[in-house]
Amino acid sequence: MNNPNNRDLQATLDAQRKSWIDSANDAACDFPIQNLPFGVFSTAQQANARVGVAIGDRVVDLAALHDAGLLNLPARTRENVFARAALNDFIALGRDAWRSVRVQLSSLLAKDTATLRDDAALRARALVKLADATLHLPVEIPGYTDFYSSKEHATNVGSMFRDPKNALLPNWSEMPIGYNGRASSVVVSGTPVRRPNGQLKLPEQERPVFGACRKLDIELETGFIVGRGNALGEPIACEDAEAHIFGMVLLNDWSARDIQQWEYVPLGPFNAKTFATTISPWIVTLDALEPFRVAQPVQEPQPLEYLRHAGNHGFDIALEVLLRPEGADEATTIARTNFRHMYWTMAQQLAHHTVAGCNTRVGDLMGSGTISGPTPDSFGSLLELTWNGKNPLALKNGGTRGFIEDGDELTLAGWCQGEGYRVGFGECVGKILPALR
Amino acid sequence: MNNPNNRDLQATLDAQRKSWIDSANDAACDFPIQNLPFGVFSTAQQANARVGVAIGDRVVDLAALHDAGLLNLPARTRENVFARAALNDFIALGRDAWRSVRVQLSSLLAKDTATLRDDAALRARALVKLADATLHLPVEIPGYTDFYSSKEHATNVGSMFRDPKNALLPNWSEMPIGYNGRASSVVVSGTPVRRPNGQLKLPEQERPVFGACRKLDIELETGFIVGRGNALGEPIACEDAEAHIFGMVLLNDWSARDIQQWEYVPLGPFNAKTFATTISPWIVTLDALEPFRVAQPVQEPQPLEYLRHAGNHGFDIALEVLLRPEGADEATTIARTNFRHMYWTMAQQLAHHTVAGCNTRVGDLMGSGTISGPTPDSFGSLLELTWNGKNPLALKNGGTRGFIEDGDELTLAGWCQGEGYRVGFGECVGKILPALR
Repeated sequence: MNNPNNRDLQATLDAQRKSWIDSANDAACDFPIQNLPFGVFSTAQQANARVGVAIGDRVVDLAALHDAGLLNLPARTRENVFARAALNDFIALGRDAWRSVRVQLSSLLAKDTATLRDDAALRARALVKLADATLHLPVEIPGYTDFYSSKEHATNVGSMFRDPKNALLPNWSEMPIGYNGRASSVVVSGTPVRRPNGQLKLPEQERPVFGACRKLDIELETGFIVGRGNALGEPIACEDAEAHIFGMVLLNDWSARDIQQWEYVPLGPFNAKTFATTISPWIVTLDALEPFRVAQPVQEPQPLEYLRHAGNHGFDIALEVLLRPEGADEATTIARTNFRHMYWTMAQQLAHHTVAGCNTRVGDLMGSGTISGPTPDSFGSLLELTWNGKNPLALKNGGTRGFIEDGDELTLAGWCQGEGYRVGFGECVGKILPALR
Repeated sequence: MNNPNNRDLQATLDAQRKSWIDSANDAACDFPIQNLPFGVFSTAQQANARVGVAIGDRVVDLAALHDAGLLNLPARTRENVFARAALNDFIALGRDAWRSVRVQLSSLLAKDTATLRDDAALRARALVKLADATLHLPVEIPGYTDFYSSKEHATNVGSMFRDPKNALLPNWSEMPIGYNGRASSVVVSGTPVRRPNGQLKLPEQERPVFGACRKLDIELETGFIVGRGNALGEPIACEDAEAHIFGMVLLNDWSARDIQQWEYVPLGPFNAKTFATTISPWIVTLDALEPFRVAQPVQEPQPLEYLRHAGNHGFDIALEVLLRPEGADEATTIARTNFRHMYWTMAQQLAHHTVAGCNTRVGDLMGSGTISGPTPDSFGSLLELTWNGKNPLALKNGGTRGFIEDGDELTLAGWCQGEGYRVGFGECVGKILPALR
């Protein structure tokens, strides 16, 4: 680093890593210039939802930048795909377009680039305070699939409800078990979630009763958004699968454990899950996650050939769950874990999903399954954290929780820690409303 | 009937029951004037898909009729909702509009109505030979749910794979068990279906192998199309549920039994079902089915209150499954049953689906589950008809079948028998292509 040329190079790199939007340079900010996640927003001044990118405490209005001629898209693109209420049309342009737009934005927002920085009129049109933006579901979701890919989670659940000695079912180690979720009830962070009613089978009664869920839970998950689909009958090879992924979000797979336990045999969870699934509003691209790629856990037995891929396919994403009771000043962090513990990779999930011929479409959401780590404070659901309510958690305000109570606000957070910056997902929040009577 | 006024009335009614399209008056025709099912079609001459109604051996082009000013829609409707590649926009106009259009068509197509009958130029624009029409998926399907509502089917499967003495699980009699299906792979009748590959767990081997499904099966089902959705958190009451249903189709829930048996615990069927689901192209409205309403089976124990509805909610729909091997001249009817055997009603399915708060949307498809009758020749799957392959079926050409072979063409048919006419569903056909290698 004593060579002046090297120093110049380093200075240039550093400059590229900083933005003229100062808030983006805070080491604790989720949205530095290294991130540039995509979302959909509207404002009181301009009610039409449109595509934006988060940076610092601002949203860059890509529809406005495009109108100003500052974003090049593939020549065939005739319309402003950013002036839409969902990202699907942009995503459908393909990976070269995603990457190109990200690079263009990275340049436009870099400390030394004057184009937007020094044009007050353009800044007024193209930059919005994050605090003033209403964030919408970022994509139209044609299909939602939820996997079950954390070995620790599957083992915990199997121990609790089946047999601790054979907690993991034999098929679990051979394939990323998944099931079809309900796409219609995927909502964006901040949407209140009503406690569901349903059939509850109480141990002391012969028949079920109808009533409000008594074991309302979260599931800490991530989800990925399909960026390139496949035709019916044409599987995606495991080695190619990551090229089909646009990016990732945080996902809370709200679960009514009592409804689930009574209904789920033999066809799987239904009403226990279909009442709401919350995702974070910003899609963090795989390109932004690239520096945080790590090895997935060792897979033993070696997966069948269609599930094999060379290289590292895990990602080092720190994850947290926070619970804030109604009226409390402070939230309690009830779990800390990491996406790197996930046994099956996203690529393997997508390869398995399509191997029998199933088609996927741009915007499809694929949930990871509950992400539980190896220690009791790293479990991704209250079911596991409290061991089905037996060991309630202590909260900062003095209360305790077995499962979620009305008025509780649950927040998922996640980020990749870089040197002096972090690539964050923002928050995935939902507050529980009382059940309908 | 001796009173001349009564005779006149009867003659008028008879005339209304006949069409000037002669083929519609054949007692064996699926599409008499009493039916008027809705679909989407295109032709070689006019490649844009548009909404049509089947009558006799013709399709009435509703986009053309609308352009000719012959169809009144609600005053707020500004665009030609029939000039679309899916029925969703028309369906979204609401039940009054569906009924009004049906009544208008019933009048236009009646024997004594000259408007279209005697206008050769208009007929040339608005009538297409069914044989010349390419039929498309009639709706965009935002969500697909499959139920499991035949007591006989659930009992057969439970006997085979669990315990013959306790074949029906305790939750089955308390709720219409259902699960989320995969909407992306719902295809229209006639689409070839490729035999899926997947993990097969052979009894003699410790680990699964990867290969082509060896136990490919059909499931004879009907499906209903949601005509009016509900908002998240606002359940549909059982008494109101039929008003949310636009109509019914035949549905073949293709199933890979070997893949299913290995993968389905604990989250339900996934790759065993997601490779294809075939539906018939014509949606028969609940209004057309109204004369065939019958009592559903007695439900014991009495369902919980949210699943109760007064009156009759079954429908007398004769159903058949035919199998034709590659190159065979003739198909063999391998099963005959009736929708009236279904234990849980469509209204109960929709009420249950939404009771925890799940939202539904116009175009959602809800499968009945395999419709098995009480006798061994009335079972709705090869799994049951051959008792998991143990008792192969004899075919007309001399062959036998345990499960489906490559090149086999499977056809579902269904109709309601009226006096001198039948309200039919047309065919739901799929031919099996060999698995990918």
